[in-house]
Formats: sequence, structure tokens, C-alpha cells
Amino acid sequence: MTGDLLRHLAELGNVGRDGDGALSRLAFTDQDRAGRDLVRDWFLQAGLTVEVDRIGNIFGIWNPAGVDMSRPEHRPVMTGSHIDTVRNAGIYDGPLGVLAGLAAIKALMAREAETGVMPARPLVVAVFGNEEGVRYTPDMMGSLVHAGGLDLATALDTIGTDGSRLGDELSRMGYAGDTVPGTFRPAAFLELHVEQGPVLEHVGDVIGVVENLQGISWQRVTIAGTANHAGTTPTALRADAGLAAARVQTYMADHLAGDTTVATVGSLTLSPGVINVIPARAEFTIDLRDPDNARLQAAEQKLAAYLDELSTSARLTITTEQLVRFDPVAFDEGLCTRIAAAADRRGLSHRPMTSGAGHDAQMMARLCPTAMIFVPSRDGISHNPAEHTDPAHLIAGADVLLDVLAELVGM
Amino acid sequence: MTGDLLRHLAELGNVGRDGDGALSRLAFTDQDRAGRDLVRDWFLQAGLTVEVDRIGNIFGIWNPAGVDMSRPEHRPVMTGSHIDTVRNAGIYDGPLGVLAGLAAIKALMAREAETGVMPARPLVVAVFGNEEGVRYTPDMMGSLVHAGGLDLATALDTIGTDGSRLGDELSRMGYAGDTVPGTFRPAAFLELHVEQGPVLEHVGDVIGVVENLQGISWQRVTIAGTANHAGTTPTALRADAGLAAARVQTYMADHLAGDTTVATVGSLTLSPGVINVIPARAEFTIDLRDPDNARLQAAEQKLAAYLDELSTSARLTITTEQLVRFDPVAFDEGLCTRIAAAADRRGLSHRPMTSGAGHDAQMMARLCPTAMIFVPSRDGISHNPAEHTDPAHLIAGADVLLDVLAELVGM
Repeated sequence: MTGDLLRHLAELGNVGRDGDGALSRLAFTDQDRAGRDLVRDWFLQAGLTVEVDRIGNIFGIWNPAGVDMSRPEHRPVMTGSHIDTVRNAGIYDGPLGVLAGLAAIKALMAREAETGVMPARPLVVAVFGNEEGVRYTPDMMGSLVHAGGLDLATALDTIGTDGSRLGDELSRMGYAGDTVPGTFRPAAFLELHVEQGPVLEHVGDVIGVVENLQGISWQRVTIAGTANHAGTTPTALRADAGLAAARVQTYMADHLAGDTTVATVGSLTLSPGVINVIPARAEFTIDLRDPDNARLQAAEQKLAAYLDELSTSARLTITTEQLVRFDPVAFDEGLCTRIAAAADRRGLSHRPMTSGAGHDAQMMARLCPTAMIFVPSRDGISHNPAEHTDPAHLIAGADVLLDVLAELVGM
Repeated sequence: MTGDLLRHLAELGNVGRDGDGALSRLAFTDQDRAGRDLVRDWFLQAGLTVEVDRIGNIFGIWNPAGVDMSRPEHRPVMTGSHIDTVRNAGIYDGPLGVLAGLAAIKALMAREAETGVMPARPLVVAVFGNEEGVRYTPDMMGSLVHAGGLDLATALDTIGTDGSRLGDELSRMGYAGDTVPGTFRPAAFLELHVEQGPVLEHVGDVIGVVENLQGISWQRVTIAGTANHAGTTPTALRADAGLAAARVQTYMADHLAGDTTVATVGSLTLSPGVINVIPARAEFTIDLRDPDNARLQAAEQKLAAYLDELSTSARLTITTEQLVRFDPVAFDEGLCTRIAAAADRRGLSHRPMTSGAGHDAQMMARLCPTAMIFVPSRDGISHNPAEHTDPAHLIAGADVLLDVLAELVGM
């Protein structure tokens, strides 16, 4: 099994490279189709039944007893992730969860062939479409539609950054399936993913037991002051929008960021942006996250109060626009306990974690008990060709996934 | 006289407008030539002798006794400014000093005709070339060459932002004169100029007695941190270049800016500049000014120490580059006393001031006792079509200039 997983990761990682060797499989492009074709063929070669739903999610199904999966007692155990990527991506973000799911089902198929013990429920490995959301917004769209959080027609009518209509591209690429989204309602969902952060590497643990997923609050803040000559305008007569933006940043770092809350200003523009002109305008983004909604709300409120105070005191006009707001997601405690126990049995060090990034699992948590398994990312890097996870850690994550899936289907 | 001044300002202000009505007389362009032709004609019509030097400075000379101006006792009293502008400029920055100088000399000529009292020294009104430095660097070039701070050959070989050679453009436009730069070494130099800042308007005074000119220190600072995911990277593991830049800005505002020191970050760029990525790199400019060199140096040293401290404590690499460094200029106390006394006699409220912007007078201060007279700028705005000075204030400044020039030549 392990050989297949590493080989599959490398092979899929070579699909969608441009002339410079950069990997980009943006959702519903020809590159995405080539990756999908490869994975679908692997599913078929493994003996899985393949179904594709109307939003392009692919499901590889092992249902050896031929049960009716719509009946509660036969609901499948599902795993999976995505294979679409950002531009100039790494090879693990997404594919690991899909290909380790395939490897796990193949291992259980082999076990069944050897022992005759059938799984108590069908097993399904899912490839959710458009997780990255680079070409079409929102991200995690395939799992969101599957979970009933976005209606199919709206999703298909989405216009991409390149002006294309999602539904047209999906049909063009041959992945507009017949299955009604949400048909496969799982009994449980597990997703293996690279951490995309530095925590596991930093503390030296191999397995992250992901207990929850941060809530996210994105805002755009615009501060309007007055452009004036940097030499002739006394300090007391300034309305410096750039300085006000800096004060917001340091306030966030000193009063909002903490053990669980993270606060980031990633984008900031000053106008007119001239060395000897006091900035008239600062426009910047704020990214606040916390796994606890009350704490996230408290951070948002403190920020709003600070912005109010700043606009009163300094001849500045401050406007904010909410860009994104996701509540935190709590994963299933029982599944987390199983993940930790499986890691213990394998002798793998583990720790409870919060996911700071969004994942398909957060949408699936609307439908069924859900949890995630993280493995370390070198230097915490992802969405970048330098994304790397040690092969031993890839295998360790796949082993834990296999063990928990096996438990859930009584094998 | 006053009618001429306002009419001249309006008329010159209409030379160099484009199809949208924007005023741009960049140095040594056809627009600049048209402005020069007009002013030269006014000089000639007034009965002045006109000389043009090799760097294109124009001198309108009233030497009714025909004395040898190279002899110390006959050195002229000089006034003037510039008529080149920035792009999309206002009409007062520069022309006021030239046209008020012309008006003053005409008034003294009339006085001489009426009373027979001759001036004790010749009077010269100068139009210095390329004060703004938009097309050719450095700014204040004409007065700098006149004062011996830049050799003629280097100045003529300057390549402009449009790829043109200054000397070629000067010849093309017909203002490459024969006079050796620096020939007219004045006994005193006075420049009337709009404030380009908000102080006079703010305090309600009409005349600024400019005692000194700020020293200027420009630096570019680059902070290198590490780009990481804004959700998955705990606060303690971040190396946030954008936050570090914000800390530098607030440090400057809280610890460097003061009664005399002004500190500005006008330009700032974050990379990669994405909402959910911690900035790997911040590049920004720092503009520090103080009329006292010791205080300016102290501010520079405190800033350097803070940058050192920041780079030690936060996994950041900080590099700085000095872009510009001008020492402060102290103007002549005796001339300042005369300006204040003249304003008092006219019943005009006045205050001692520091110039935050550079002016030709700072170059002339290398040659002779020099001072400046400021009049208010509405809202402190200049380098902008909204630049405005109340006509009464234009006249008030011209009256004070006239009175001090008259005193200096015993009229």
C-alpha cells in the first residue's frame, strides 16, 4: 500500500505542470480534468464503482454487499479531500487525503479477500471539486453543495475570474455527472491532510488530531485622512491614514492576538504612496481567526471599538466591509478519540490541534460525525512548490486513517 | 503694481495647460519655454536687462548707475524664485517669487523716476531653472549650479525621466545662455514663496518670516520576514514583516516626531500582499526632517537603534538605504529682523517659521545673507490645482518684499 500512495502522489503531482514546471490544477480546467481522469482510472482499477455528481464531485465506492446506502444502517463511511490546486502549488495539499483514502480502501479490500470479513458499511472515497476557490468563489464549493449549504443552480452559474461559467466548464471537461449532490450521506467522514502550518514540526509530533476548525472573520478597512506635504505639515495638524493603519496593526498584535486568536494584515495599500506626501488613504485587510466563536466575536468587537476610537480622535474617516465570516467548526469527539488511540497503537506521537485553514471536512461536519488527521508540513509551507511532508509522515497519516476507517466498518 | 502682479500670475498660470486644463511646465519643455518667453518679455518691457546663464537661469537686471556688479560694494540685491512646475500644478508655487520681484523692481523704478533717488546697489530678479526636479534630478538645480554646488558639465549631462539630455533640451528651447553660472554674486537674496503648508492659515498670520529650512533625511527600509498561512501559523511562530513595519511607524510617531521633528512614512508595500498570507516583506520610505541638525541626527540614531532592536527580537532582517540627506539651512537673522519690521509697519501679523520644503533660497544661502517670506496656502495644499493663496495675502507678501528690497538698496 505505501508504495502505491507515494507513487500516486508523485504521479498526480506531475499532472498540470506548465512549461516552467509550475503545478496548477485550477478547478475545472484541462489540468484539473487530466488529474481527475488519472484518479478515476485508479479508482476503477482498484475495483471501486465510480459516481460523479452534478457539481463534479467524484465518489469511489466499495460496497461489496451491495447494500442500499440511503438506509441509515447502511450509510457509508466516507473519506477524501480534493485534487484541485492553487497556482504554482505543492503536490500534497488535497491529493494526500484522496490517495490515502484510496490506499486504505484497497488495503481493506485485500484484508476482506484474505479473511472473508466484510465491512459493516460501504466505504467511499470522495474527490470534492473546487476546494481551493481560486477560479470560482466560494472555496470548498463541492463539499458545500454536497452538504446542502449552496444550491446546485447557483453553484453552476458561478462566473470565474476568467469570465467563464462554472457549469459550462464542468460540462466541457466531462465531469457534469448525473448523481444528485448529497446522495451519499455518510455515517462518518474522515479527512487526512497536510497541516499547512508549522505546529507539528515545531513540537516534533507526527499526528495532529484535529478537534476543531477556526472561525474566520475577514474585513477590508479603509482609512481616509488628508494628503499633505511631509515637510511643511506639523505633526499636530496631520491626518495620516498610513499611521492610523499602523496603529490598527499594532493594536491587533498587542490586544487581539493571543493563545487562540490569530490576527493578520496581509494586504495594505497607501495612497498616493509618495515618499514626501502624508498618506491620504490606507486600505488594508484584516484576517481574524479563533476556534471559539465567542472569542472570535470578542476580538471583532474590540477591533470595532478601537476603530471607532481612532476615527474620533484623529480627523480620520474609517469604513469597514465584512468580506468573509465563517463560524468555527467543532469536530466529533468520538472520532478524535479513535484517531488518538490509533496513533498510540502505531507508536506515533500526536497532539490535539485546531485547523487554521478551511477544509472539505468542515462542510461534511454539517452532515455527520467528522474529524481530520494532520501530518507535518516542513517549515509550515503550503500553497507553494516548497510544500513538503516527510514520506514517513505521509505513511504514518495514511496508516492512522486506515486504522480508524477499519474500526468504523468493523474490520 | 498690485494689479500687474495678480494679472501676471493669472496669465503665466495659463501657460502650459493641456487639453484637460491641467497645468504642467516641467523644466526645459516647450511649456517651460512658453512661460520663460512671457516672463522675459515682461522683464524687457519693464526696462530690465536680461541675461541668461549656461544652465538656463534668467536674470532681469536693474542697474541704472551701470556699476560693475562684480565689485563687492556694487554686488546686487537679488530676489526671485522659479517658474517650472510639477505635473498638474498650481499657479503660485514659484511664479509668485519671480513676479513679485519684478513688481517690486518696477515699483522702485517708478520711485526713482519720481524722486531721483537711485538704488545704492543694482537689483536683480532671478528665474532659476529646474527647481522642481520632476524631469531632471536634483531639484533646485539652477540655483545649486549658480551657488557652485554642482558643476555645469554634470548638470548639462543629466538624463531626464524621458531619456532626454538636459543640455540638449536647454539648447533646443533656446535658453542655453552665455553667462557663466555664478556671475551674479549677490549682496543679499530674498525669496517670497507660498508656504505649501498649513501653519500660517492655522494660526491666522499673514507673513511667515522664514528663519531656517529643515534638514531632510530620506531612507528606504526593507524588512524581510517569512510568508506563512494567516490561519495555521500561531502568533508566537510568526515573522510578520508587515507588523514590524507598523511598529516602526508607531515608534516614529510616538518617539521621533515632536515640536520640531516631523516623521512620515509615505510609501509602503507588503509582499505577497494577500489577505491570508503573513507578509514576507515590507518595503517603505521614511522622511525625517528637523531644522536643527543635532536633533535630526538624534532622530536618525534613535530610529537606527529601534530597527536594530526589532531585527534582534523578531526573526526579521532589516536593511536601510539612505536616499537623501540635506543638512538644515539657517537663514540670515538680520534679514529676518527686517522682514518682521516691514510686516509690522504694514500692520501685517507675522511669525517666525521653518520651511519644510526645499527652495532656491537654500542654495543662495551658500553665497550671501538670505531669507524667505511666506504667505498662507489655503488648506496647506500645493503641487496641486487646488493650491490657493488669498489675493490680499499675495499682495501683502509682495509689499513686504518690496519694503525690504527698498531698505537694502537705500530707497
